[in-house]
Amino acid sequence: MSTKIVLRPAQREDVAAIVAMLADDALGRGRERIEDPLPKSYYDAFDKVAHDPNIQLMVAEGGDGSVVGCLQLCILPGLSSQGASRALIGDVRVSTTLRSQGIGEQLVRWAIGEAQARHRRGDANSSSC
Amino acid sequence: MSTKIVLRPAQREDVAAIVAMLADDALGRGRERIEDPLPKSYYDAFDKVAHDPNIQLMVAEGGDGSVVGCLQLCILPGLSSQGASRALIGDVRVSTTLRSQGIGEQLVRWAIGEAQARHRRGDANSSSC
Repeated sequence: MSTKIVLRPAQREDVAAIVAMLADDALGRGRERIEDPLPKSYYDAFDKVAHDPNIQLMVAEGGDGSVVGCLQLCILPGLSSQGASRALIGDVRVSTTLRSQGIGEQLVRWAIGEAQARHRRGDANSSSC
Repeated sequence: MSTKIVLRPAQREDVAAIVAMLADDALGRGRERIEDPLPKSYYDAFDKVAHDPNIQLMVAEGGDGSVVGCLQLCILPGLSSQGASRALIGDVRVSTTLRSQGIGEQLVRWAIGEAQARHRRGDANSSSC
């Protein structure tokens, strides 16, 4: 079963929903701080991510427009493998009530496709300073 | 035993020495291309790395000024762990004849110290666009 979602770049307004998902497991509970308002460090980190051309933080929107999943894709240039950039996928989360419905798979498939598209364009870091 | 080395940022002139080390193991032999001149893709990758404020490619110089080791440190901003940036160490290599003399350890200790120093400065990506 594959739940219908829309993937889009995360916005600053999504930070609370993303952090709530990051905190929603045994490890996350111990390392995140869910407060209202959220600690400024989360927004500072979002700004760094948003300004980094090699990082894409994506969210999955459910049918009602709420954020139900997230993923961060990092493109890392390097010399090995004939100078091929590497893609690093992290911080993949899906809302508790919507797990096992293929949302994580859709996020990861998007990341693989995006990494391959960037490789074809040869644009790792191309928009950096 | 700890061999005396000097660590410094890699220069474009070091690319051939770095690639030679990357190619010098069972996996590397299959994925690198040691040609003269080296394929342009290695230099393109070096330029991307050199322009990325979140990536530091370092080399270890031996007593005679030759390049005897390398390491790439990537600083990755992200929301998890209260917005803490993560450090990723990769492409650590030491020349065949100088292994088991503590050069890799010195490279990795440098990377850990540098990541901690950047954390204290709070400067992950700070010099990006």
